[in-house]
Amino acid sequence: MHWSRWGDPDRSGPLAPAARELVDAFLGTRDTPALAEAEARLAPPLPAHLCATFAGVVGAEQVRVDDATRLRHTRGKSTPDLLLLRSGDAGDAPGAVVRPADHDQVQAVVDVCVREHVALVPFGGGTSVVGGLVADRDGFAGVIALDLARLDRLVEVDPLSGTAVLEAGLRAPEAEALLAEHGLSLGHHPQSFEYATIGGFAATRSSGQASAGYGRFDEMVLGLTAATPRGRLDLDTAPATAAGPDLRQWLLGSEGAFGVITSVRVTVHPLPVAVLDEAWRLPSFAAGLDAVREVARSGLAPAVLRLSDETETALNLADPASVGAQSDGGCLLLTGYEGTADGLAVRREATTALLREAGAEALGPGPGAAWRRGRYDGPYLRDSLLDVGVLVETLETAALWSRLPAVYAAARASLGEHLDPGLVLAHVSHVYDNGASLYFTVAAGQGEDPLGRWRQAKTAVTDAILEAGGTLTHHHAVGRDHKPWLEREVGPVGLAMLRAVKAELDPTGVLNPGVLV
Amino acid sequence: MHWSRWGDPDRSGPLAPAARELVDAFLGTRDTPALAEAEARLAPPLPAHLCATFAGVVGAEQVRVDDATRLRHTRGKSTPDLLLLRSGDAGDAPGAVVRPADHDQVQAVVDVCVREHVALVPFGGGTSVVGGLVADRDGFAGVIALDLARLDRLVEVDPLSGTAVLEAGLRAPEAEALLAEHGLSLGHHPQSFEYATIGGFAATRSSGQASAGYGRFDEMVLGLTAATPRGRLDLDTAPATAAGPDLRQWLLGSEGAFGVITSVRVTVHPLPVAVLDEAWRLPSFAAGLDAVREVARSGLAPAVLRLSDETETALNLADPASVGAQSDGGCLLLTGYEGTADGLAVRREATTALLREAGAEALGPGPGAAWRRGRYDGPYLRDSLLDVGVLVETLETAALWSRLPAVYAAARASLGEHLDPGLVLAHVSHVYDNGASLYFTVAAGQGEDPLGRWRQAKTAVTDAILEAGGTLTHHHAVGRDHKPWLEREVGPVGLAMLRAVKAELDPTGVLNPGVLV
Repeated sequence: MHWSRWGDPDRSGPLAPAARELVDAFLGTRDTPALAEAEARLAPPLPAHLCATFAGVVGAEQVRVDDATRLRHTRGKSTPDLLLLRSGDAGDAPGAVVRPADHDQVQAVVDVCVREHVALVPFGGGTSVVGGLVADRDGFAGVIALDLARLDRLVEVDPLSGTAVLEAGLRAPEAEALLAEHGLSLGHHPQSFEYATIGGFAATRSSGQASAGYGRFDEMVLGLTAATPRGRLDLDTAPATAAGPDLRQWLLGSEGAFGVITSVRVTVHPLPVAVLDEAWRLPSFAAGLDAVREVARSGLAPAVLRLSDETETALNLADPASVGAQSDGGCLLLTGYEGTADGLAVRREATTALLREAGAEALGPGPGAAWRRGRYDGPYLRDSLLDVGVLVETLETAALWSRLPAVYAAARASLGEHLDPGLVLAHVSHVYDNGASLYFTVAAGQGEDPLGRWRQAKTAVTDAILEAGGTLTHHHAVGRDHKPWLEREVGPVGLAMLRAVKAELDPTGVLNPGVLV
Repeated sequence: MHWSRWGDPDRSGPLAPAARELVDAFLGTRDTPALAEAEARLAPPLPAHLCATFAGVVGAEQVRVDDATRLRHTRGKSTPDLLLLRSGDAGDAPGAVVRPADHDQVQAVVDVCVREHVALVPFGGGTSVVGGLVADRDGFAGVIALDLARLDRLVEVDPLSGTAVLEAGLRAPEAEALLAEHGLSLGHHPQSFEYATIGGFAATRSSGQASAGYGRFDEMVLGLTAATPRGRLDLDTAPATAAGPDLRQWLLGSEGAFGVITSVRVTVHPLPVAVLDEAWRLPSFAAGLDAVREVARSGLAPAVLRLSDETETALNLADPASVGAQSDGGCLLLTGYEGTADGLAVRREATTALLREAGAEALGPGPGAAWRRGRYDGPYLRDSLLDVGVLVETLETAALWSRLPAVYAAARASLGEHLDPGLVLAHVSHVYDNGASLYFTVAAGQGEDPLGRWRQAKTAVTDAILEAGGTLTHHHAVGRDHKPWLEREVGPVGLAMLRAVKAELDPTGVLNPGVLV
């Protein structure tokens, strides 16, 4: 991963000419390059005696204090994170990167952190976009990033039950490759797929692009193991139980604040033998919402349902390579089917009937193929825009179907007001019987203080979303960025519950301090 | 509800001749009548000054201390509960039954309980089978049953989102009737349907007979409100969120120990316009498990999937009215479809193909119709058996598909060993992609000490189930009866988490003391 951009350094590059032309026309461009890596100013490394203590647990070669490694474990990949790094500010760098080999070593590192009062940031793919990888430093003897990359085993496959136990440090492509050897697949494909890890998916309640078919990650998890300052937590009995509140759901979304998730038992599926992407044009976003609601409720939805609003459709954002090209208007809807040939046919028939009834016009296979090709490329486009003076960021929410239009309107209005002139694009990509997510992309000029500009807009739009009945976040977690609003989401009693569990499991507060609660 | 039997007193009666003949042949019968209601020995009523304090909150007419009312709020409907009542032991009677009108009155009653140190048992339908309605008394100024019957409103219907807000005291038939006025239905039909309440379903993680189609109750809940000693808890934003751990799942299954759930937002569906029950014979329970697993995984399962093992099939327990009649062997599988005509046809076609492939033989509509007619009647049969010297009880678990045969064998062996001579019957009635529930019914002679006999068998079979990889309970909750095994299910760290939330929300421990944690 590039130190101050998304993804593979070899794949980063300038904006395509058509996109640059478009941005020039709407927002204007100017060169705003990042500083060189050598100019980054890092927090100091961990004191040697603490490094030696961690080395006693994981081995000296697995405690890294070099700047290059620490810089690549500094913050996540939100636009504010990137803006800070581009300006050379790496003040949140961990003092060391510690790389345990297995659950027991994770537990031992946690125990050392408690004993030495060292703050611990669990680090998977480093793809947080909500400030989930920045720890409080005050009062701690140091901060380490606990890199889980070596927990990369497929521990167990149970084909009869359709489950597998995966270690937390497995990146999604690695997990899929290991499962594919058994003819199985997880089907979890968020935009961060190429870098994000199994443990991160669990700790943040991730949701993938095929969530209509495979569910959210928190729905896939049947069991989990975590290392906490109170010891090992194992939850793994049955697909469903009434043995008290569902403690798995207490760890999912806990963002490393309650413990370090080291493995999960997840639902897996036979590798799809058939995949089919189709595209439709709906006359308007409102008509599109009606259509996807009916499809979601039919019980026969495709694996992928992705509806762009008019602006996103006009800008071709569903295919980052085509931004700036001509569009035919209306709203683009992508339907992606995966599974057996028979299962696919049943769903396709039912979905097609509902879409035709809703006035959808078939667009052929082109847009679906383009989307599948570019489905992980959005963040590269963001970097290219950050290079030319454009502030670009995403945010997301979810709401009941009845509240969705108001949430959409409120968020658009707020973003439009605070980032003017700017472009606000949105799509729905996660649907439920009772509601759906809304994912916004916004672009505006960076101005003199892009970070301040964004923070002001983010504060206003978050207030607006909550006021209109949306949730604080549908699949990006709380981190530090959403924390000021958590009490509004769950109320003072809910917050007290979270704090009580935090105090019980992590009484000295060394686990990801400052994140979540 | 009858004071010492299940259900409507007018519907209780003696065992049908065919069933009596069968029981006589296997176990022998003798008269073991219950004592008369007047002979029941109740704990004393609540002191007058405390009654006056509660009357100040809910009105004097809503604080009941008469024996008849208190007796009908004593314990639940497990066989041990009934055996105690039949012998006249009503020592667990609440000192008063307090009937609040709404959430605010519930909160005020909770506050009085904290101030006066009175134990509070939330009481819905009184159908607990795990000792969930028996509070510790030591050290408390008294015990009240908080009867939620007056919280019986349909608060909100959101047809566009397919949700409704229901108050906790609504019995299932009342809830269905109110929803039916809007053309909607919940689809939650446990055997306790005729008496159990919405709040009880949420507090115990109930699962209904059509769970394959409508899901478990904990899956239906999108939002909830609870009254806790720390104040009101409101969780109701979106169908799905990543704003921290899912706090709704902390209250679901909390059995009144964290707070009193006063309303829930649930998923609702259009009233089914088509219902079709079919029956199949599978050659063996093992073949049946293979078949229902494939159906469950197809994504096109019927709403009801119920597979009886060989013994249950031979005894016709799926239709309590036919127990003792001739059976044709094999294993009975019921498939019940509900929904639109088109949706039903799609699922029926897919399911039928899978069942035929698995060697299932169609049995026509008779058995399905009989099952639907008698689906809530099992508990009446139990009372008739208790009258003639037979000890009869049920228990249930769930496990991954790969562990299910071992769990089934272990439970049968343990029950057979401890209740010899006896009959052990089982069925699967809740299926998941990754596993299923197992529901056992056991009958044996009562002997001299039926309660002691059952407790010994229950202890042994619970140990056996957990040892084989089953969960402590799939849909009956923990109560007092399962509490000794909870640490084995969730581990010491899991138990510490539950205790931390209990201590935070209910620091003086007045909420259902002795239940869950």
